[in-house]
Amino acid sequence: MSKEIPYKIYLEENEMPKQWYNVRADMKKKPAPLLNPGTGKPMTAEELEVVFCKELVEQELDETNPYIDIPQEIADFYKMYRPSPLVRAYCLEKKLDTPAKIYYKFEGNNTSGSHKLNSAIAQAYYAKKQGLKGVTTETGAGQWGTALSMACSYFDLDCKVYMVKVSYEQKPFRREVMRTYGASVTPSPSTTTEVGKRILEAHPGTTGSLGCAISEAVEVATTNEGYRYVLGSVLNQVLLHQSVIGLESKAAMDKYGIKPDVIIGCAGGGSNLGGLIAPFMGEKLRGEADYQIIAVEPASCPSFTRGKYLYDFCDTGMICPLAKMYTLGSGFIPSPNHAGGLRFHGMSSTLSELYDQGLMEARAVEQTEVFAAAEQFARIEGILPAPESSHAIRVAIDEALKCKETGEEKTILFGLTGTGYFDMVAYEKFHDGKMIDYIPTDEDLQVGFDGIPKIPGIQE
Amino acid sequence: MSKEIPYKIYLEENEMPKQWYNVRADMKKKPAPLLNPGTGKPMTAEELEVVFCKELVEQELDETNPYIDIPQEIADFYKMYRPSPLVRAYCLEKKLDTPAKIYYKFEGNNTSGSHKLNSAIAQAYYAKKQGLKGVTTETGAGQWGTALSMACSYFDLDCKVYMVKVSYEQKPFRREVMRTYGASVTPSPSTTTEVGKRILEAHPGTTGSLGCAISEAVEVATTNEGYRYVLGSVLNQVLLHQSVIGLESKAAMDKYGIKPDVIIGCAGGGSNLGGLIAPFMGEKLRGEADYQIIAVEPASCPSFTRGKYLYDFCDTGMICPLAKMYTLGSGFIPSPNHAGGLRFHGMSSTLSELYDQGLMEARAVEQTEVFAAAEQFARIEGILPAPESSHAIRVAIDEALKCKETGEEKTILFGLTGTGYFDMVAYEKFHDGKMIDYIPTDEDLQVGFDGIPKIPGIQE
Repeated sequence: MSKEIPYKIYLEENEMPKQWYNVRADMKKKPAPLLNPGTGKPMTAEELEVVFCKELVEQELDETNPYIDIPQEIADFYKMYRPSPLVRAYCLEKKLDTPAKIYYKFEGNNTSGSHKLNSAIAQAYYAKKQGLKGVTTETGAGQWGTALSMACSYFDLDCKVYMVKVSYEQKPFRREVMRTYGASVTPSPSTTTEVGKRILEAHPGTTGSLGCAISEAVEVATTNEGYRYVLGSVLNQVLLHQSVIGLESKAAMDKYGIKPDVIIGCAGGGSNLGGLIAPFMGEKLRGEADYQIIAVEPASCPSFTRGKYLYDFCDTGMICPLAKMYTLGSGFIPSPNHAGGLRFHGMSSTLSELYDQGLMEARAVEQTEVFAAAEQFARIEGILPAPESSHAIRVAIDEALKCKETGEEKTILFGLTGTGYFDMVAYEKFHDGKMIDYIPTDEDLQVGFDGIPKIPGIQE
Repeated sequence: MSKEIPYKIYLEENEMPKQWYNVRADMKKKPAPLLNPGTGKPMTAEELEVVFCKELVEQELDETNPYIDIPQEIADFYKMYRPSPLVRAYCLEKKLDTPAKIYYKFEGNNTSGSHKLNSAIAQAYYAKKQGLKGVTTETGAGQWGTALSMACSYFDLDCKVYMVKVSYEQKPFRREVMRTYGASVTPSPSTTTEVGKRILEAHPGTTGSLGCAISEAVEVATTNEGYRYVLGSVLNQVLLHQSVIGLESKAAMDKYGIKPDVIIGCAGGGSNLGGLIAPFMGEKLRGEADYQIIAVEPASCPSFTRGKYLYDFCDTGMICPLAKMYTLGSGFIPSPNHAGGLRFHGMSSTLSELYDQGLMEARAVEQTEVFAAAEQFARIEGILPAPESSHAIRVAIDEALKCKETGEEKTILFGLTGTGYFDMVAYEKFHDGKMIDYIPTDEDLQVGFDGIPKIPGIQE
């Protein structure tokens, strides 16, 4: 075992990133803009400011500045749980008997249990700075809602969370953590909003979806004085904040002269993946270095590998701006068998464009394989991974095993986004042999687009 | 906010302790020895080796060597999750508006979620080295069982856990984490042991206690070839391993020239407290420095503050050696209202002796006050603390508020032993105003001694 590189590389406080990195600044062909569904024209700052905080809108629309200062207040909060460790998976390498060198950036060492806090604290900060009373949001598996509750508690902001109903019922403890931080949590769809009532009328007994919960949260934000809506993934601003993951990873690797060959991240809306790969993709875009970048998604929610690249609604209620993205259709609802997050129907516009340009690849994996990797990893590396993160573990192990066959000494970096403490129901299903894989047919996938109006002048 | 001392002090790998510290070596009056309940004579190594691993017995009986080398295999495992951070609670200080400086040593940054892993990995290592097939143990709140499962999985040892029945039923997720690491988990008392059957016959419908579960685990270890019993607290060997907490804390503080005035730890059997205070108590015993040391225990299980200092059984089945300790009587079962751990009827012999010599003090706190402190801490410092750890938080906050009154700039160090992810039922009770405080009357406390035979020649 090499004595030179420690098990965990921690940056010193003064080595932590002082700016976020905005990958769009280095893209020659920029991601397609958000469109106003009414006019078909790009959303203006004024239009977006009805929904989002002012400074976050600036960040959302900024395609030119590669670096944006991290305000001191956010940097101070980051110091409470960052830098996160970059871990050399010595034990896993040994167990797999692979010549590959495996590193993971572990973002689960904070109470929210995931990387989501990196953007939550930024969004809460800008909301506070704008003098708002509070923010609204949706949460699915619960990581984002938990992170936002923590952030709002820190800045003394009200926090209203719409939680996908099936998750609200299956994960009462997630709800209690949010309450511990003072948030109010409502199962979605609910009768507290007009759009919720409409959805409930059309689909009585629905267990909800992220798309529904987004619609409700946006309605509450736009109809209540002093509130704005915040989102934990998909948006450019979120990828910007999450770039702290990649910047720290790169700084830690540079410190020890390590260069990754393969970079692997799980992808739902793209917040973790976009953050992890940001500075590496920047080098790739500027022609300074090359990396193999792999997005991993669930076979049951395969937006990159089986979705269409077109303008779509971000929410079920069709009240949000249109985004051009790889999408399964805004009517898509993942199978109830699907455990964990990564269940949004679309994918970040920025990542969609990078994928379309061939700058990264994507793989879909089945959930029993994912949980097998999760359990193996837990037993060897000691961290109980979230189901989402375990998608990346699966492919990292697969790549390391390929190296074993070929003898290649590749350096693999993957993002371990969070812990699975609130996912034990899914682990139990897996242990009891009751977890089912689900690969939708092409007909199943068509359902996401059925009944969604085509957008005149934008889609045929 | 001082810029000199970082939010979190991490030692470098080469600054980590290479030896454990054995506080008994510096005690002039040693703790009373374990006695054989049959003969009334001190347990010999040979007698103890029927129950415990050979090298652990040596550690248990060693009263002379102050430092014991940490074997390389254990040091390697420690590197996977240690050093744990020593955190300066800048945000809490600010919120309390206190001149006190508050530090906490956070042991929850590993999957087992607590400090218990420090001893679990050591005990599993010695079991493996001895060529055993596996180990048995009991667990109450579940932290110890989880830690031991992880440790056994790492060394490929079988792990049989007897889990107090009430906890088994209330905490199915704890059970699943242990299963993820390959352990078998049996609710106690059970019909898998003779002692379990006896207890069930005498107390049908009992929800179990740590004392019962210990009896069952010991029976299984002593009647199955290739098994030994391991324990997560109370014993000298456990305090020895846990000294890594205090040694790291002291090294980190020394690095920045910090000297604590007050050191606070929660106390059930004493594993965390004994570990945290070890090197500081050593200095105190050698007359090199003075510290105020405070043990915090639940008002509903007050062994230090209201127990008797005498020889008692460690288990309900009375099959374990006798220990001289502050005890509520081996028949004591905490009120069902009591949430969280710290529910053992006795206290480490070493800590009992130190307390009896006046080298430390003790306080009992009620659980609603503890959860109020837990919630306040979570909202300010971002970490969701375990109920056990929150006992220390309560007193740390109380001490800091006293400093606010007196203007004293005391430096407070407390042990944050773990996270509360699996304790959300208790948090929910607290949020809903349904948590009840329980202070036993003197008559209630007498029950722990009723029906327990007096030990001839040792007690009256």
